[in-house]
Amino acid sequence: MGPHTAPFSRAEYERRLSKTRRAMEAAGVDLLFVTDPSNQNWLTGYDGWSFYVHQGVLLPLDGEPCWWGRMQDTAGAQRTVWMPEACILGYADHYVQSVTRHPMQDLAAQILRMGHGGARIGVEMDNYYYSAKAHAVLQTALPNAEFVDATALVNWQRLVKSDEEIDFMRRAARISETIARLAIELAEPGRRKNELVGEVMRAAVRGTGDDWGDYAAIVPLMPSGADASAPHLTWNGEEMKRGEATFFELSGCVRRYHAPLCRTVHLGPPPKAMAEASEALNEGLAAGLEAARPGNTTQDIAAALHAPLRRIGIHRPNRCGYPVGLSYPPDWGERTASLRKGDLTVLEPGMTFHFMPGIWMEEWGLETTETILIRESGPAETLCDLDRRLFVKD
Amino acid sequence: MGPHTAPFSRAEYERRLSKTRRAMEAAGVDLLFVTDPSNQNWLTGYDGWSFYVHQGVLLPLDGEPCWWGRMQDTAGAQRTVWMPEACILGYADHYVQSVTRHPMQDLAAQILRMGHGGARIGVEMDNYYYSAKAHAVLQTALPNAEFVDATALVNWQRLVKSDEEIDFMRRAARISETIARLAIELAEPGRRKNELVGEVMRAAVRGTGDDWGDYAAIVPLMPSGADASAPHLTWNGEEMKRGEATFFELSGCVRRYHAPLCRTVHLGPPPKAMAEASEALNEGLAAGLEAARPGNTTQDIAAALHAPLRRIGIHRPNRCGYPVGLSYPPDWGERTASLRKGDLTVLEPGMTFHFMPGIWMEEWGLETTETILIRESGPAETLCDLDRRLFVKD
Repeated sequence: MGPHTAPFSRAEYERRLSKTRRAMEAAGVDLLFVTDPSNQNWLTGYDGWSFYVHQGVLLPLDGEPCWWGRMQDTAGAQRTVWMPEACILGYADHYVQSVTRHPMQDLAAQILRMGHGGARIGVEMDNYYYSAKAHAVLQTALPNAEFVDATALVNWQRLVKSDEEIDFMRRAARISETIARLAIELAEPGRRKNELVGEVMRAAVRGTGDDWGDYAAIVPLMPSGADASAPHLTWNGEEMKRGEATFFELSGCVRRYHAPLCRTVHLGPPPKAMAEASEALNEGLAAGLEAARPGNTTQDIAAALHAPLRRIGIHRPNRCGYPVGLSYPPDWGERTASLRKGDLTVLEPGMTFHFMPGIWMEEWGLETTETILIRESGPAETLCDLDRRLFVKD
Repeated sequence: MGPHTAPFSRAEYERRLSKTRRAMEAAGVDLLFVTDPSNQNWLTGYDGWSFYVHQGVLLPLDGEPCWWGRMQDTAGAQRTVWMPEACILGYADHYVQSVTRHPMQDLAAQILRMGHGGARIGVEMDNYYYSAKAHAVLQTALPNAEFVDATALVNWQRLVKSDEEIDFMRRAARISETIARLAIELAEPGRRKNELVGEVMRAAVRGTGDDWGDYAAIVPLMPSGADASAPHLTWNGEEMKRGEATFFELSGCVRRYHAPLCRTVHLGPPPKAMAEASEALNEGLAAGLEAARPGNTTQDIAAALHAPLRRIGIHRPNRCGYPVGLSYPPDWGERTASLRKGDLTVLEPGMTFHFMPGIWMEEWGLETTETILIRESGPAETLCDLDRRLFVKD
């Protein structure tokens, strides 16, 4: 096993394949084409920053999956996937970002060669890495195939984590705690935000103990003051100011597994409304953790969270969390269940969520969040260990 | 102008709109829907890590463009786009990653409201951020519209950079040089690769002089030894070894503008074949720079590069470069022209490319590259200033 090989047992991959194939059968899919890089990794171990070109995994109901991608990336596949070399397929470089050729023409030829030209092919219709053009070219090149929307079919199989996966998330959580503490420690009036981000990124990649840090699927988010009403601003070169809060949205990453964590720092005494919101939020988080137990549903967590916030007049229209684990940019969420009203996913042991009730007001923002694990019984476990208060620094 | 506002003049944005509208007219497009985050930023200034949900810019032939996205991200839009607030449109959170609703239903309603229900709508068919599902939902919801493939329509307008853009790329180049020098300096037997990446990331974000560093669209790539035959492996926690080469593929980033740079370090004396390849590569790079002048074509650069390599028996089937500038993950290339045989883009002053002739052999990899600027006359300018030798460290 090389240094890049995903350190899962063959049995773990077999478990994943079986689970996915049961879902394929239920959906009437003969052949699944997986473009989501997280799903590719989960099924085959493939790992590399090559998802900016068309690539994917072909999974038939029988036999081994094939990884398919740009010829020069087959070298990366040989180093990262568990299948034999015959299961690695490359397309010629003249297909890359060409205006006259499209990689899906090559994929269609491979599918025909395998005898799947008349198959019911599942494709991830709503995925960053399956473009409208890819679908159109594939449809034209495989006129006898039937296409089935298999968006998130694999993602749903990832919802309950194996013990091996949870172990990686725990290790990522050690890094998340470390970098969140570092960010809180470094936050002070006059500190340039990019400088703080630099320290956080360095610590995240250094890792903790024997675990080296991988890149997280989202860069550090850390808006300050009124800018923190905007959830997805990154950083700039401004100095942090007294009288302003900054939230830090961060995650450690170990072998692509994440454990996101957010905390908020206020420099100087916080406004009363913000301190109150933080207290209500913490009450809601505690109630949500209590509700996050097997047999309850995702919407129960949201309801428990929102009750104390509503009491002080804060109505969050947004979902308050999503499943997390293995991921690649641009998102560390798994894009299946959501913690929100109307979502009736029944909680099972081994599910992991980023319980993420950000509060974005007109003049400030507050984020205190946890990555949680549904246990066999009782309330959820928080994978990170860090006080949930609004951190106030003078 | 807030701290997040893109520091371009209004005249610069007007120039971009006019140029894009001429291309829309030539393509018979009445209304353009732009999903590529780089294109959104280039046209409107929008900046935020929110591209993991559906969002985009609507550009009609007349009037101002509108930014459209998730409601909670309109706060980020208000802080980053140059248009008035009436041009910022948000959709409700229950559209996000829902199995019963799709954000494109909201977009269709907006388009109908604007009176464009029967328009010829240009969409970026082959883009990470325009999924097959998005297209299918939009088509269904706008039965009277005609859809035109406008893949890379805006990207092509970005090929020739303005002086303001080149200034940002020069500033990014200062960071690229700094971090490449740092990587070379830190490379030594026993150095853990993740530790080296951490130092590079910290320096990249700290920036140089008054320029703070933004996140690059690709994380540092730095495979070692035989792994360097795979172009897109990232890092791990292994120690660097004597007798192995590591290439560093890096870029500084200033306000989303990049200037990628690669260099290779060999620890201990390099094998003869690699030293020879490096010499031929440098000869090819020099010849390519000579060929990179106005009136020549992109394929002329590739031909000049490849001649000395062929002489020593290295045949590169891959393209040797692509345009660069403004970008977001997962790619810092612009996905229009390519430096390769058959690509007949005529070079013009102000075009910028990552001249990127990676050599990936069975047992090692070598990357020595430059970000180049086509000048008014004469050979191209290299934006970074760093020796192109194969760096050998004992």
